[in-house]
Amino acid sequence: NDKQMKAVQLKSFGIDQLMVEEREIPALQANEVLVNIKAVSLNYLDLIMVNGSFNKNVAFPYTPASDGAGVVTAVGAGVTRWKPGDRVVIQYVQNWTKGRIDAESNAVRVGWQIPGVMAEFVSIPEHGLVKAPENLSFEETATLPIAALTAWYALIEQAGLRLGQTVLTQGTGGVSLFALQIAKAAGARVIATTSSDEKAARLKALGADAVINYRQYPEWHQQVKALTGGEGVDITLDVAGEQTIGQSLLSVKEHGYVGTAGFISGTALPLDIMQHQINMNFIRIQGLAVGSAESFNAMNRAITINNIHPVIDKIYPLSQVQDAYRRLESGQHIGKVVISLA
Amino acid sequence: NDKQMKAVQLKSFGIDQLMVEEREIPALQANEVLVNIKAVSLNYLDLIMVNGSFNKNVAFPYTPASDGAGVVTAVGAGVTRWKPGDRVVIQYVQNWTKGRIDAESNAVRVGWQIPGVMAEFVSIPEHGLVKAPENLSFEETATLPIAALTAWYALIEQAGLRLGQTVLTQGTGGVSLFALQIAKAAGARVIATTSSDEKAARLKALGADAVINYRQYPEWHQQVKALTGGEGVDITLDVAGEQTIGQSLLSVKEHGYVGTAGFISGTALPLDIMQHQINMNFIRIQGLAVGSAESFNAMNRAITINNIHPVIDKIYPLSQVQDAYRRLESGQHIGKVVISLA
Amino acid sequence: NDKQMKAVQLKSFGIDQLMVEEREIPALQANEVLVNIKAVSLNYLDLIMVNGSFNKNVAFPYTPASDGAGVVTAVGAGVTRWKPGDRVVIQYVQNWTKGRIDAESNAVRVGWQIPGVMAEFVSIPEHGLVKAPENLSFEETATLPIAALTAWYALIEQAGLRLGQTVLTQGTGGVSLFALQIAKAAGARVIATTSSDEKAARLKALGADAVINYRQYPEWHQQVKALTGGEGVDITLDVAGEQTIGQSLLSVKEHGYVGTAGFISGTALPLDIMQHQINMNFIRIQGLAVGSAESFNAMNRAITINNIHPVIDKIYPLSQVQDAYRRLESGQHIGKVVISLA
Amino acid sequence: NDKQMKAVQLKSFGIDQLMVEEREIPALQANEVLVNIKAVSLNYLDLIMVNGSFNKNVAFPYTPASDGAGVVTAVGAGVTRWKPGDRVVIQYVQNWTKGRIDAESNAVRVGWQIPGVMAEFVSIPEHGLVKAPENLSFEETATLPIAALTAWYALIEQAGLRLGQTVLTQGTGGVSLFALQIAKAAGARVIATTSSDEKAARLKALGADAVINYRQYPEWHQQVKALTGGEGVDITLDVAGEQTIGQSLLSVKEHGYVGTAGFISGTALPLDIMQHQINMNFIRIQGLAVGSAESFNAMNRAITINNIHPVIDKIYPLSQVQDAYRRLESGQHIGKVVISLA
Repeated sequence: NDKQMKAVQLKSFGIDQLMVEEREIPALQANEVLVNIKAVSLNYLDLIMVNGSFNKNVAFPYTPASDGAGVVTAVGAGVTRWKPGDRVVIQYVQNWTKGRIDAESNAVRVGWQIPGVMAEFVSIPEHGLVKAPENLSFEETATLPIAALTAWYALIEQAGLRLGQTVLTQGTGGVSLFALQIAKAAGARVIATTSSDEKAARLKALGADAVINYRQYPEWHQQVKALTGGEGVDITLDVAGEQTIGQSLLSVKEHGYVGTAGFISGTALPLDIMQHQINMNFIRIQGLAVGSAESFNAMNRAITINNIHPVIDKIYPLSQVQDAYRRLESGQHIGKVVISLA
Repeated sequence: NDKQMKAVQLKSFGIDQLMVEEREIPALQANEVLVNIKAVSLNYLDLIMVNGSFNKNVAFPYTPASDGAGVVTAVGAGVTRWKPGDRVVIQYVQNWTKGRIDAESNAVRVGWQIPGVMAEFVSIPEHGLVKAPENLSFEETATLPIAALTAWYALIEQAGLRLGQTVLTQGTGGVSLFALQIAKAAGARVIATTSSDEKAARLKALGADAVINYRQYPEWHQQVKALTGGEGVDITLDVAGEQTIGQSLLSVKEHGYVGTAGFISGTALPLDIMQHQINMNFIRIQGLAVGSAESFNAMNRAITINNIHPVIDKIYPLSQVQDAYRRLESGQHIGKVVISLA
Repeated sequence: NDKQMKAVQLKSFGIDQLMVEEREIPALQANEVLVNIKAVSLNYLDLIMVNGSFNKNVAFPYTPASDGAGVVTAVGAGVTRWKPGDRVVIQYVQNWTKGRIDAESNAVRVGWQIPGVMAEFVSIPEHGLVKAPENLSFEETATLPIAALTAWYALIEQAGLRLGQTVLTQGTGGVSLFALQIAKAAGARVIATTSSDEKAARLKALGADAVINYRQYPEWHQQVKALTGGEGVDITLDVAGEQTIGQSLLSVKEHGYVGTAGFISGTALPLDIMQHQINMNFIRIQGLAVGSAESFNAMNRAITINNIHPVIDKIYPLSQVQDAYRRLESGQHIGKVVISLA
Repeated sequence: NDKQMKAVQLKSFGIDQLMVEEREIPALQANEVLVNIKAVSLNYLDLIMVNGSFNKNVAFPYTPASDGAGVVTAVGAGVTRWKPGDRVVIQYVQNWTKGRIDAESNAVRVGWQIPGVMAEFVSIPEHGLVKAPENLSFEETATLPIAALTAWYALIEQAGLRLGQTVLTQGTGGVSLFALQIAKAAGARVIATTSSDEKAARLKALGADAVINYRQYPEWHQQVKALTGGEGVDITLDVAGEQTIGQSLLSVKEHGYVGTAGFISGTALPLDIMQHQINMNFIRIQGLAVGSAESFNAMNRAITINNIHPVIDKIYPLSQVQDAYRRLESGQHIGKVVISLA
């Protein structure tokens, strides 16, 4: 039946509730584009959406996933930007097209307030798509919408990363590896933290100039200072939250930028003006989460010009969707967990 | 004896230990300027320096006060910028001349790592002084180095306040009243919080467009939202710290700026990424404390062009120095507490 | 006939060819808004469009005017932002909603590539309108789309005008008077040039801190320097082009901003790197022309908060449309020439 | 005689008047540093200083050269930043330490208002030196003060070059090759113009993504547009002035940056608001010339982190100083002409 497609559906919370089902291909409205999704990638948000720890008010059945890439198969009336055959990727905050976010745009996120994209076909407003980078596969492209754009927006648009500055990244998750790759492409020095020698070797292979094992150095901010002649770094992205934010602040120099991009160790930020020298050192703590479609396009140009390839931990077929979520849950992944629908 | 002068000396912690004594007028070194101090003003820092709650390692006898203004009476060899008769004001972070602060400059602050200026004569490196605004008295000028420059640097240089934006200020202390005056001079809308109708009236007389009594509305961030059509303000300066920072974050719009300029209710900042919507709303929390000499000069031009006059709570003679500190300690002051040495 | 309206039509070049005719009220499409235009204002662009000196390829009959304000009378299917009764103003570059302009948006300007608004009713895409400031009449509001937004974008968004800086304006045309009013509202010092004592008095009444009669001082940049202690101003808007641009450059300080906002004396800019100290003084020459709808909204908030009222030279009834153009052509106007359709 | 040194002296205009002479080693004053110059490099400025076409008021005998690098051999009283053995490079605008230039600093340039550094020993105020990059030889370091810092300041500090943007450079002179290297290190795409296939090959070897032969394409801005999908580049540095500035403007996209960094084809900039779409495209024309010591340090960090090595055309011994100037005069050089004093 060519009106049917496969889609993942969640009818109650739990990874083991993720089911591949047959659904009807969505009807195409005016100004919308029908996209044949080829791959999706998972984010920490997907994990806490599915296990119910983030948002209790999910309308079941829920189609998960915010990150997706595919090919245009049909366009609705009035569509001018896309044609069948175009390789595209989903813009997570659909209506954030340019400039700064506003309250109205902020309330519409794919896989949260509106359905996700883990389905063979989705219908998307034409302004909610971005052209895929020419140098990337669909699996690679599917890793970009949240993790890469978050790292880009933080480093390039908020922090204004300059050639020759020093950036500190945390661990081997998606945002942090993109931050490493983006910072290196931009000519920065990168110091990375991690928990094992094996991961340290991987980080160095990806370009990290120095790696700190935080098991070996629980007060790792002291190592960061030592590696920067006592000065501290210009920019860091904190992805763990509660357990790391204090040391993140102690790792930056005067007027330093601490982007807070995640909360895998807890959402509380137990800060102290004196202990963390917030005022004395003019530190900027900056909340962040993805970027606009215009930013996404700018990032994709950078990805193509510098031939950056995302780090993919593993690609799962759609039938193993539960395994993919469990891989993310394990915390053992390096880079992005991807599910192929091709 | 024309080589003698009066100076306040502290030999052990406690407001009642502040004594006016006779001391020798300091010798003038090369590249230094001898300034006859006419007035000083007090900051919260002075209070906690003198009562010993901030810094235990004070070298007694300690000459207090960071804020001072006066007239040049002599210049040392090599001085080119100043001549006797010039009206000048102290630059608090002596070696922060331009641009961003660095670690080296950050370690030299008047009345902290180096002696204060509550003396009839002080000897200051020529780059550590700024020309006093022509439209202000010495008593008014003495209020500027910490409180006004902190408000200026936050609003104008960090937050980039634009004509027509909305600013939220807290209470009637020095930094907050300067923030109010600067924001109004810059064509902003100002909402202020306070604890009494009497203070509210004073804030409105100073230009506040709206005032919220936080005793009446303990969840005052809701009033801020109501006064801004649900949006929140562009910029706020938090001066209380622990008790207010959470509501400060909930008072700003997307990409809003929360300057943390003080900690009169505690230095802990009990923040939470989700509860305070830090990531979701792309909030910037910015540590701050005064500015460069270049910023001070720019502020003084603004003060003169717009004929801004600082709000002085009360002027005390030098002999009543202890009363001045107790006034600040009471928290009853509106604006700056000044001590005249004239 | 309630399907008929009055509209000005041009069928060949020449002010005397401007005719008021009966036309059919435009049909309302989906996502469009029908606006009853109450007032329009004229810009230099209107003059050169009508006399044929700017663009030879006009499709006749041509409806002139880029600036218009009125009230919403009906909304098409899908319109969510507007309802009948809303007071609105035209966004000149219809599709420039946010951020920086792009080539696609740049090609669609009201009264140029698409018809103008000198008609009792026009149908406009909902994103091509901006809410009128509450404190302004329709006649005042109609002056904003080109002249005010150009001054705003130059001073506030491009030059980043700060409280206490000095701005130089030229003459008494629309852009320059808005620049004066905006700069004063933002707490700047303003120096203005003009050709007569009478106009000088008017400029001072509008807030100019100093006025230079360029007939008296043909080398007026020397006066600008004298009025700024030899330094020069931070920002100037050049509206005359060929005859003034050189002196504009010589009037600014190091890193100064020279916005080029017009060319009433000629489009050539006869500059010289050495003579005008372009490199030596790090001067920025910045092309500019209006702003985005987001900028327009930000400006309107500033207009309301500071109760700024545009300077209107004279209001003409629609029947005297040719007189209005001739007034503009005369160069005798002070501020904006307005045509009322109410 | 260990109090004697070699120095180049000019006693009247003309390359053939450049003479190597014996002079006394300068006495060391307080706050000064004695530097044993190991290498100098030449700039276009040196050529026009020596041939008399730039500045007629040279005080003979004149010691030429603005760019120099060497090693500290002694420090005067009060010097804290340097010690014998330190590898240093000259800051061309000696007193421009941080932030934006001001009139006072702007008036003191090495080899112009004060003597140049083509001598075995020079005595320099301690704030007028910058630490040499660790990865460069003295000959390489000597190329940095004017050409590299001009390219850095333009691209990184003025234009705010972002990862993934496109930069257009002109030819194979010093500023342009540094611009190419800096832009590539920062992850930009670079298009370069040149006059021969041989030079084109060299530019590609240095990283240029595309090269346009302007002899083949006299209307080279059309090629730039074609290479950028019709859009134009984000940033260009114009180094030729009169003959190229118009095409430079036509090569950039909306809000594009045209830095004017030189005038080898003439100092006139024959621009036209309409023809060059200055207003319509919101183009920024930005004068520029070197940067602050703080910028120089930031650039050196970038040079070391990215192991950038300056392109040296040829190194001449001091005895062939006239040949070095003639090489520059010929216009045949690719990169920097250096004179070794080692």
